[in-house]
Amino acid sequence: MAEPLGVGTAWPVGGGGPAGVGPAAEESSQPDIADDPARRTRTIKATIDAGIDASKTAEATLRRTREAVEPVLRAAVDTLPGRLRSIAAYHLGWEDADGSVLGSIGGKLLRPGLVLAAATAVAASGVGGNGLGAAADPEVLASAAAIELAHNFTLLHDDVIDRDHTRRHRPTAWTVFGAENAILAGDAMLALALRLVGGEAASRLAECVIEICDGQFEDCAFEQRDDVTLDECLTMAGKKTGALLGCACALGALAVRADPLAVAALDLFGREIGVAFQLTDDLLGIWGDPAVTGKPVGSDLSARKKSLPVVAALSARSAAAGELARVYALGRDFTEHEVRRATEAVERAGGRAWAATEAAARIATAHAHLRRAPGVEQAAVHDLHAIAELITRRTS
Amino acid sequence: MAEPLGVGTAWPVGGGGPAGVGPAAEESSQPDIADDPARRTRTIKATIDAGIDASKTAEATLRRTREAVEPVLRAAVDTLPGRLRSIAAYHLGWEDADGSVLGSIGGKLLRPGLVLAAATAVAASGVGGNGLGAAADPEVLASAAAIELAHNFTLLHDDVIDRDHTRRHRPTAWTVFGAENAILAGDAMLALALRLVGGEAASRLAECVIEICDGQFEDCAFEQRDDVTLDECLTMAGKKTGALLGCACALGALAVRADPLAVAALDLFGREIGVAFQLTDDLLGIWGDPAVTGKPVGSDLSARKKSLPVVAALSARSAAAGELARVYALGRDFTEHEVRRATEAVERAGGRAWAATEAAARIATAHAHLRRAPGVEQAAVHDLHAIAELITRRTS
Repeated sequence: MAEPLGVGTAWPVGGGGPAGVGPAAEESSQPDIADDPARRTRTIKATIDAGIDASKTAEATLRRTREAVEPVLRAAVDTLPGRLRSIAAYHLGWEDADGSVLGSIGGKLLRPGLVLAAATAVAASGVGGNGLGAAADPEVLASAAAIELAHNFTLLHDDVIDRDHTRRHRPTAWTVFGAENAILAGDAMLALALRLVGGEAASRLAECVIEICDGQFEDCAFEQRDDVTLDECLTMAGKKTGALLGCACALGALAVRADPLAVAALDLFGREIGVAFQLTDDLLGIWGDPAVTGKPVGSDLSARKKSLPVVAALSARSAAAGELARVYALGRDFTEHEVRRATEAVERAGGRAWAATEAAARIATAHAHLRRAPGVEQAAVHDLHAIAELITRRTS
Repeated sequence: MAEPLGVGTAWPVGGGGPAGVGPAAEESSQPDIADDPARRTRTIKATIDAGIDASKTAEATLRRTREAVEPVLRAAVDTLPGRLRSIAAYHLGWEDADGSVLGSIGGKLLRPGLVLAAATAVAASGVGGNGLGAAADPEVLASAAAIELAHNFTLLHDDVIDRDHTRRHRPTAWTVFGAENAILAGDAMLALALRLVGGEAASRLAECVIEICDGQFEDCAFEQRDDVTLDECLTMAGKKTGALLGCACALGALAVRADPLAVAALDLFGREIGVAFQLTDDLLGIWGDPAVTGKPVGSDLSARKKSLPVVAALSARSAAAGELARVYALGRDFTEHEVRRATEAVERAGGRAWAATEAAARIATAHAHLRRAPGVEQAAVHDLHAIAELITRRTS
């Protein structure tokens, strides 16, 4: 449980799942290092070291992002009327329910980080940019704040829709302020997000929000269906999670007047790492350390969530898949033992290995898009790389 | 009950309420025609005739609006993904829950009517416009569609928030598709609305949406309070209802490049008729004909709504006000007799007369704003006048 999950996801070192799960089957052609203990130890060590370096870089990137974007974000939120502002400030982790100031907690600002990193990657080539340095460009910062607001609007509404009680280790806004008021605060945050940007950025962000709503709609619908395919789930994750990470990269590029093909390539880069993000999220939902994720052990399984590793496992034609299906079909709350049985069944049916491999494949595809982006300076993509690394290596 | 309410609201011909209600007290200085039966009959007849003429003009204006705007609105809604489009089409009255086509019912398109009328009023002066005729200008039509989408986004979410079961004589969208999906469809409609317009129009519409959310937030909060003042309620109505009618007029003017002062004056015009609209709505909620409004007799009172006539009545220091407060304090559903008692108490405490006078005063102020708008051709404001008339004369 306490094993750093990211290592397993970005570079799967254990044996892949049993053949049968479609995508996992491809993995069997990879050289198997499980039989050579010394080589395996070296690989794990190198992987962990690389992970620590990458996460240090990502941390530095996100720290710079916070310093640059948070003031813009706060100034925008402060324009909201009284109580709507309070709900937004609570949800963003800036204030407690009684209005007392909490300092700078809240999300990782991963999406604003992508906006700044994409702008930097383009501006460094001299194609775009205003010479200020992309990360200090007011249009880049406004886009970054808009993306974070749009992200938080979706979280506010999703928490109401999913009846989730905890987010970032705190009670969700709707449990504190009421569902009605959380809906209204979310609406106001969406309008605010779209007010911060103009022109093509505004159109893209609006399109993206519609795509996210479609993804969330499908996510809810899938929970009612017994015949959801892995492809449907991946497409849904592309809308629900990938679209906004793609839009973040595209808006960063747009803000520094990138070549339209570079904007498109960066959008694709973001979409791919977005799906990797969702796969990692789903792995953490099953094998994450509850002390770090803030979610109880096996909460995703107890809620019978059809997360990607679960759907992958269920679509394998194996005894373990049948076992998982039987546990999921139980018409009552799971016992601790049943949560363990389900967890093991997902792993034995290949769901864990498939998700880890798929995440790695998405990251690889993302990098391929980046390499093909015209006018993107390959020497200036380190922040994009660092965030992509962080996405599959994170533990919460 | 079947008396055409509009006549009573725009030109109150009956005796005003007893002095005591602040604003109603001003009315006592008006010449009282109640004592001269012949003069009263003539006045009523002239009023009804004027009303019929005005409503014919407004009907024609709104028919032209529907012909011009509905295709743009449909094309926009058709860009929404599958099920979200279906929920929007159901809510807009175009389709049934099973997707069968219903033809052109749904709202009156009053707000798009204001967009076109404001654009026409400005463009006729030759200051703005592209020579196409304002009502055929693509930017005017896009603004009109955006305003109607924003309006319907608020209705979708308000129905979820207020747990209302009926809208426009049909089950509300959330009762048919689920609250979760209605929230998502509303989100998508808001994003779509903001995607249809750009530049200052987009900023204004986003600001307006935030103001509407604030108004709706206050409306919910007021239902929990016992000490809400009439001023607070009027301010809330200005946000919840006035802001969007103001924005509709402003966007129409902006789309034909009006002088910024004309945009501001048209915004104020729309805001004033918006409050008159809310006052009329509240009067219809008590004295409207259930066959026309589609709401059961006394539904606003049964729900103990703190609508404007009720708050006006409650703030009068009279026996009738006390009677109303006592009925409202009953800790159970009202009997038919109690609904009648409450209705009569609102009237005797002056709530009805005050609301009618206030609505007329708002319309007068609106016209004063219009006369002061630079570059607005007074010969071309007939559509704005017709819609303003309709607002207080409507019966549903």
